[in-house]
Amino acid sequence: MKKESERMTEYVHGYSDREALRLAEQADTLEELLHYDTIYPPGAKVLEAGCGIGAQTVILAKKNPRVEITSIDVSLDSLEKARENVKKNSIENVRFLQADIFSLPFEEESFDHVFVCFVLEHLQNPSEALTRLKKVLKPGGTITVIEGDHGSCYFYPEGEEALAAWSCLIRVQACMKGNSLIGRQLYPLLRESRFSEVKVEPRMVYVDSSKPELVDGFILKTIIPMVEGVKEQALEMQMVGEETWSKGIEELHETARPAGTFCYTFFKGRGTK
Amino acid sequence: MKKESERMTEYVHGYSDREALRLAEQADTLEELLHYDTIYPPGAKVLEAGCGIGAQTVILAKKNPRVEITSIDVSLDSLEKARENVKKNSIENVRFLQADIFSLPFEEESFDHVFVCFVLEHLQNPSEALTRLKKVLKPGGTITVIEGDHGSCYFYPEGEEALAAWSCLIRVQACMKGNSLIGRQLYPLLRESRFSEVKVEPRMVYVDSSKPELVDGFILKTIIPMVEGVKEQALEMQMVGEETWSKGIEELHETARPAGTFCYTFFKGRGTK
Repeated sequence: MKKESERMTEYVHGYSDREALRLAEQADTLEELLHYDTIYPPGAKVLEAGCGIGAQTVILAKKNPRVEITSIDVSLDSLEKARENVKKNSIENVRFLQADIFSLPFEEESFDHVFVCFVLEHLQNPSEALTRLKKVLKPGGTITVIEGDHGSCYFYPEGEEALAAWSCLIRVQACMKGNSLIGRQLYPLLRESRFSEVKVEPRMVYVDSSKPELVDGFILKTIIPMVEGVKEQALEMQMVGEETWSKGIEELHETARPAGTFCYTFFKGRGTK
Repeated sequence: MKKESERMTEYVHGYSDREALRLAEQADTLEELLHYDTIYPPGAKVLEAGCGIGAQTVILAKKNPRVEITSIDVSLDSLEKARENVKKNSIENVRFLQADIFSLPFEEESFDHVFVCFVLEHLQNPSEALTRLKKVLKPGGTITVIEGDHGSCYFYPEGEEALAAWSCLIRVQACMKGNSLIGRQLYPLLRESRFSEVKVEPRMVYVDSSKPELVDGFILKTIIPMVEGVKEQALEMQMVGEETWSKGIEELHETARPAGTFCYTFFKGRGTK
């Protein structure tokens, strides 16, 4: 296994990859920024833990057509959607399985690599999840973890009501026992689970009006809908009044105007067993 | 002048520079991250506006030994220290001048490039400052602006008292009519002053214990002393009690321990006249 891991390391940190990071940083899409280096050597067995409706599965499979991907999720509904998603994209190297990260139905050391994207934030015990995933990983194999961090978000102009709406997002997720501030914590979490060669990189999305595709794709189509998604709960839990909420959403739209800017940072961590 | 500006663009964005950015991002020092591309073509006349005690002057001059630097500041005391600083480093391509950004003693179009680092945050009217600086710039010349953003700061573990101490830093600076959240605002400011080809890049400092030099040089020797610097004012203005303050400083130290992480983002903008 050592050889495979070395091969991957070479691939991931080689010259063309540094070049790719530069491109990714100037890129107009989130996918490039997060996944330009989500590349595994052909033939590798990769476990995607917590695939949800398959949004990341499609990217992972397209970037690694010669890799055997096993994608698991606890929700049968999500798996159904993930299957459709993969089929629609004519992807054939993914098998789906209903399974729980905390009781994995695999033998120890069955996978070359593990991939976890936007999952730990939803778990009450992310450290335990990493430990369980490490068990099914072969020695020398790697785990890749990508998470956001809602506390990394700031913008201009920064209206008071926009901040209030944003804080609702964090608090609603906290009430659901998640941790939306987990990105900054990846390094200690991976170390705690005794992975070695742990390396965490921030992947910052900075948007100003010189990047119209990110204004549209990130601020207007990703961030604002995400905040709007907790409206009902925020009002129900009386975190905020209806008027403040509406003004907050209005203010968030101002960050997408020519004089606005928006910042958010994802974290991508890698560790070796 | 066009030629010189083109030469610089070529230099700054050439291959070796992309390589340098990668190195800078993995670098252990702030200087590399902020200044790896603070490079001007030999013979250029560069105005450093607001040099203070010369901390950036020394870096600028060392990286550009064949450039004619004019460094100005309103404070004679600061200029005296800047002169010593430069002398101590055997730098000979800098002349100092006491002058105010808002009434510059130079003819219009006298400089090829203007450099402004950690200055706008202290001004009540940064946009007006940029407009004044633009006047003394030759057509085709560039302005480079570097600023921090205290709202870009977050860390792990994130104790309540640490947050309170950090918020004192922002509020004390606001009382002094400064704007410590100016980094995110560079793009609209440069556009407002009608610079063209405006490009702003975040330069994020991410520190975990795999980077011991940044733990020491950034968290312990830059950030914590900066926060401690406003203690007296924060207590005097009753922003916080003595006990909370001490606990806050203690908590900030935890971010420098093996399980801690720390994030802060600077912004570097460039515009062309």
